[in-house]
Amino acid sequence: MGEFDLIRRYFLPLVGQRESRSLLLGPGDDCAIQRIPPGRDLVFSVDALVEGVHFPRNYRPDYLGWRALAVAASDLAAMGADPECFTLALTLPAVDECWLESFSRGLKSASEAFGLALAGGDTTSGPLTLSVQVHGTVESGKGVRRSGARPGDLVAVSGTLGNAGAALDYLSDPAPSADMLAVLEHYHRPRPRLDLAEAVRQFASAAIDISDGLLADLGHILAASEVGARINSDRLPLSPALSRLKEGRAIDYALRSGDDYELCLCFSAENWDRAPELLKSQVTLIGTVEAEPGLYLDGEHWALEALPSGFDHFRSES
Amino acid sequence: MGEFDLIRRYFLPLVGQRESRSLLLGPGDDCAIQRIPPGRDLVFSVDALVEGVHFPRNYRPDYLGWRALAVAASDLAAMGADPECFTLALTLPAVDECWLESFSRGLKSASEAFGLALAGGDTTSGPLTLSVQVHGTVESGKGVRRSGARPGDLVAVSGTLGNAGAALDYLSDPAPSADMLAVLEHYHRPRPRLDLAEAVRQFASAAIDISDGLLADLGHILAASEVGARINSDRLPLSPALSRLKEGRAIDYALRSGDDYELCLCFSAENWDRAPELLKSQVTLIGTVEAEPGLYLDGEHWALEALPSGFDHFRSES
Repeated sequence: MGEFDLIRRYFLPLVGQRESRSLLLGPGDDCAIQRIPPGRDLVFSVDALVEGVHFPRNYRPDYLGWRALAVAASDLAAMGADPECFTLALTLPAVDECWLESFSRGLKSASEAFGLALAGGDTTSGPLTLSVQVHGTVESGKGVRRSGARPGDLVAVSGTLGNAGAALDYLSDPAPSADMLAVLEHYHRPRPRLDLAEAVRQFASAAIDISDGLLADLGHILAASEVGARINSDRLPLSPALSRLKEGRAIDYALRSGDDYELCLCFSAENWDRAPELLKSQVTLIGTVEAEPGLYLDGEHWALEALPSGFDHFRSES
Repeated sequence: MGEFDLIRRYFLPLVGQRESRSLLLGPGDDCAIQRIPPGRDLVFSVDALVEGVHFPRNYRPDYLGWRALAVAASDLAAMGADPECFTLALTLPAVDECWLESFSRGLKSASEAFGLALAGGDTTSGPLTLSVQVHGTVESGKGVRRSGARPGDLVAVSGTLGNAGAALDYLSDPAPSADMLAVLEHYHRPRPRLDLAEAVRQFASAAIDISDGLLADLGHILAASEVGARINSDRLPLSPALSRLKEGRAIDYALRSGDDYELCLCFSAENWDRAPELLKSQVTLIGTVEAEPGLYLDGEHWALEALPSGFDHFRSES
């Protein structure tokens, strides 16, 4: 099977998985065309995933297809944007029809689940690498940035933290406990918080998705907003499985591990008061924004530079 | 140097290389934001480049930086779109500052030359692979597709053909002739025909950029438009260097080799008559569109399926 047949068989079925309100022309021409409705902005983000770096070697292709789109879609949720479409640049060592069938199945489930239609792509031979760019839209000027946190704001996180990080330690466990099966699901099937996007853009002053761990990603908000924060680790929301881990380990996962793709959000007290119960039921307040730079974690002060700066793919060379 | 310093040092200087009329928020947040002016459509395309597949191993990084953006920008020209901005997903085996300095210099020259501002990206470790997505805009509904060719239209190509293909055969020549130095420049510094974009969208009925060779790319227009064509190889525009090659070789390069990133265009007779001299001086008429499917090349009929279908990265496996 050649490149063109491959695209036709495995990827074209993903076109128009949903009514994309804005996609006028999908794959097959020199470019795709999107018509952004008047009064809305285009919001877009690209993520690269490399075998052996962002996902394990010989990772299940259907999990990979889901994951590639989930990771990128999470950035749309963090801006408060509604999903529209995506492009996929896929580099494959060889045409393995079983692999492609499984990969495209995972990608299709994610495409349906997240409401993202395939707009275009490029498929070539080479080491297994994916690059996914997602496009969303938001009312003009309403995209939520990292830089909007103000002293007095409340700091919140969605869902529960640390599950995917714990899962990574159990990926090769041949007989995982029921608890670990539950957290493995978080790693294999991350669910970007697109369900919160509307509430984020209506109520949040700043937002980021937690891909590198809470300390690193909250650090990015604090740096961009030129503020500090005070948070308490005993307020961090944990899943039942993590709560049963030995003391300290769950908190460590929750503070330092990413891959959950939950959101870290800031709200002015006024906006928090008028936020709907639907939002409040999905997020947990963990602290406050302060004027003094740096982070007070359980009363201990960390300079911003002392916080982990996120997963650095080149740290060994630095 | 870590990933974040690397981005700061080598890539942030590319932001706002030009006044992008539409880019509201560039790199550094979860997403970039673009505001498409009312009455215009977003036009976008992604291209992946893999070392050893799309460019030689140990290729000069400044050439690579230029090439990556040129290849992608060429798709905008083929739609008749005006360039706006781009994203870059870059996978690098290691941080080599000399490499990065040279690569970002090449990318910056291209960014300035093509009027494309850096909007965002992702940098990770892995085998050398690039994925570039370009964004342009066009008056709503005016994006030129492959499917618009009609019987009676004239077939034209821009510039001269076959230069980059000839260059590929001389890349490792230690002492190239003056002729070959001239064609090598075509390979190393492809110039997407953004200068023709406005004329393309005003006058062309169908367009494609010639990345896989004239036969393959004209074949894509004929397939999408459900028409045929009649062309004469003695009308193919050749550079002086190629004209001096032994008979037949230049024509073969012109018909079958890509990488020139010139345009293949169709015009109704009426539109051709009223096209400006500026356009006519840059393109050469090589034939006509016919109702009968397939291609008459110098009087010999080729079924559409018999035309090369473009460079197929997986053909060896098919």
